[in-house]
Amino acid sequence: VEVEALDNDHDENSEQWPRLSPRRREEIFTALSRVDSEELFLSLSAADQAELLPLIPVPERRSYLRMLAYDDATDLIQNLPPEERENALSLLDAPTRRDVSALLAYAEDEAGGLMNSSYVRLRPEMTVDEAITYLRAQALTQVETIYYAYVMAADQRLVGVLSFRDLFLAPPSKKTAEIMKTDLVTIPEEMHQEEVSRMFSQHNLMAIPVVDNDGRMKGIVTVDDIVSVVQEEATAAIQRIGGLESLDAPYFQLSFLKMLKKRAGWLTLLFLGEMLTATAMGYYEKEIEKAVVLALFIPLIISSGGNSGSQATTIIIRSMSLAEVTLKDWLKVLGRELASGLALGGILGSIGLIRILLWPSRMQTYGEHFLRVGLTVAISLLGIVLWGTVMGSMLPFVLRRLGFDPASASAPLVATLVDVTGLIIYFSVASVVLHGVML
Amino acid sequence: VEVEALDNDHDENSEQWPRLSPRRREEIFTALSRVDSEELFLSLSAADQAELLPLIPVPERRSYLRMLAYDDATDLIQNLPPEERENALSLLDAPTRRDVSALLAYAEDEAGGLMNSSYVRLRPEMTVDEAITYLRAQALTQVETIYYAYVMAADQRLVGVLSFRDLFLAPPSKKTAEIMKTDLVTIPEEMHQEEVSRMFSQHNLMAIPVVDNDGRMKGIVTVDDIVSVVQEEATAAIQRIGGLESLDAPYFQLSFLKMLKKRAGWLTLLFLGEMLTATAMGYYEKEIEKAVVLALFIPLIISSGGNSGSQATTIIIRSMSLAEVTLKDWLKVLGRELASGLALGGILGSIGLIRILLWPSRMQTYGEHFLRVGLTVAISLLGIVLWGTVMGSMLPFVLRRLGFDPASASAPLVATLVDVTGLIIYFSVASVVLHGVML
Repeated sequence: VEVEALDNDHDENSEQWPRLSPRRREEIFTALSRVDSEELFLSLSAADQAELLPLIPVPERRSYLRMLAYDDATDLIQNLPPEERENALSLLDAPTRRDVSALLAYAEDEAGGLMNSSYVRLRPEMTVDEAITYLRAQALTQVETIYYAYVMAADQRLVGVLSFRDLFLAPPSKKTAEIMKTDLVTIPEEMHQEEVSRMFSQHNLMAIPVVDNDGRMKGIVTVDDIVSVVQEEATAAIQRIGGLESLDAPYFQLSFLKMLKKRAGWLTLLFLGEMLTATAMGYYEKEIEKAVVLALFIPLIISSGGNSGSQATTIIIRSMSLAEVTLKDWLKVLGRELASGLALGGILGSIGLIRILLWPSRMQTYGEHFLRVGLTVAISLLGIVLWGTVMGSMLPFVLRRLGFDPASASAPLVATLVDVTGLIIYFSVASVVLHGVML
Repeated sequence: VEVEALDNDHDENSEQWPRLSPRRREEIFTALSRVDSEELFLSLSAADQAELLPLIPVPERRSYLRMLAYDDATDLIQNLPPEERENALSLLDAPTRRDVSALLAYAEDEAGGLMNSSYVRLRPEMTVDEAITYLRAQALTQVETIYYAYVMAADQRLVGVLSFRDLFLAPPSKKTAEIMKTDLVTIPEEMHQEEVSRMFSQHNLMAIPVVDNDGRMKGIVTVDDIVSVVQEEATAAIQRIGGLESLDAPYFQLSFLKMLKKRAGWLTLLFLGEMLTATAMGYYEKEIEKAVVLALFIPLIISSGGNSGSQATTIIIRSMSLAEVTLKDWLKVLGRELASGLALGGILGSIGLIRILLWPSRMQTYGEHFLRVGLTVAISLLGIVLWGTVMGSMLPFVLRRLGFDPASASAPLVATLVDVTGLIIYFSVASVVLHGVML
């Protein structure tokens, strides 16, 4: 009954799809009529299509694959396990297979892997009138919508671009070369999709041409494909900042074990790092024995370092990925973050000091030297927040400089690094301030 | 000299813009020639344009504003301080002013605030031939690119949509009503931009019409505007997860004090929450005095709870914002997260136990009861990771249920909440396992 309810509304069906378990999806898909499963299939993402392909009876697979535009077929095949790709390719017709094979050579997250070739090619010597006629004829055969016409020399080099509007507005007898825009925005084939999406938000274009090193036109990337790219990249960034491997799949679609693996890896790594705190604390066992009151503030102090570090690292990672901050800005950022750390540490230190000095039972809880205890906490907070802020903001620069992804500096990683050093700062301050009094 | 260097390359200029300080930007802008500053002005975001407007001599402001398409003018005016908006409006020509005022009534992050009215309106009774002629004539007057033609009844109700391709392919004598697509994807005026961007990634359309409650066409939202919306929303989400207010501006553009405010608010709030750990620890002072060894593991144990909580909350918040998980999934999520928490806690607990039991100097560091200490740590880790995972995953549901933004449950907030309860779990386990032996 429920299967039929889903059956009746395809839109709802494909919207619910990411929330269904793999088993449920299999049930629904196999229960649908041929027409309905085709419609559902077309509405899904490439990853979901790849998952359904094995459920389709072998003789029918060919027609499902051939329903797809060649760039969508490429995406589907890219989502198949490597050993199944050859087989899927063999089901395509020869020209599509050639195009798909060419696209498969690009990584999925490169400009080359995002592009399609549904664009209108004009020659510089065509007149506007010829161009409009040619363009109308092409509109009939093109699979995807067309936005711009690209003017190419005989050797396939891109020499100019024209919008439909430019064409309609120009005198019919002018040459395209005379009215085309030659101040071109282009993308190299191997540009990463994150940078490609930045180009789109900077230039507000509907499509950007992809060219090789010699300026030869390879295809276009259209803005509608960029929306999902930006969503995907953002999800991955959020998950890395939250301290796990990016899931690359919706919550309910990921099997329990796969999800566990994505979380356990980082959690274990952080745990191993955090074990250093137990070792560090071992060195201060005697101090704690003499002044148990010091132990009371450990969680407060290390978490403040962790929180300020998380903030700083989050800000810098995001600014780097939006190219608002680049590697050469490190000194400017350092200066600003030193000031921020001092200010933030000052605020938290003052609150901590006031809390201890004004606590009603301060003598019983902190002993007669509550003023010195308060100073120890306040100075440590200043030091640790400053340290956390500087560490958190500089780590992404260090990682990028070393060739790693700055986003590997997740908030929990920074917090862990700051925890160990924070303890050292705290007990060092204590050994000075409380020297001869409690220690 | 540097000003002139920037002067020569406008593209570079506007790309560098977000990285320049407000003073530097003022310097450059005022040093440019009129033509160059106009070009730079047009290449900037609405927020940047709003910032520059006061720098433009009063008599010239009118022509700068009138260079903008009316939706871009609306964005600029929306970015001005409220007291300056009326003045800017008065500089526009009468019809544009009317359109801008209508758009200003919408919140900037609603569908209504994103839409423009550069679309082609057709009547159902037009023939394809008439439609094509009309469409070509409109292309000459439209400011932005056109993708679809919308078919509207006499009362402005949207009844169908046609792509250019549909029109060119159809027999010229057919009525648009016969060939139009009536299975429409539309957006209500007050839909939030986050949901609007989800519609675009689901439906892969270049533009979606905005309609009021009676189905009357109000405008269209085009996909190129959605790319920046998705970027903005992602940045805000990342910054909230990292434990700060969303900055709403690039790093170098935000003044030091504004940036400090965005960070200090959350940091202070978390600090005040974390102070509860000092209070909680106060209750266990005697236990720590008797068994100082317990203090050694406090950072390790509470950070493990915090990290597992951060992971869980990050996963759920992102899944909710992508609508992969909704409010009614809470029980399914709870079941899954209970299992995850047990598994993750089991892994960390085992590592902790092994570490203590196999530590070379275990007798000196942990005393003769190192086995019981190890068990205390292992059981506490299991309990705290389980608790952190469940808390972290359920908090976004609770917040959404209460009508708050689930994304307010930042990773550091969850960590703070888990820290306090984590201490209680740890010392409760200790009081049982070490009872009569060390406590």
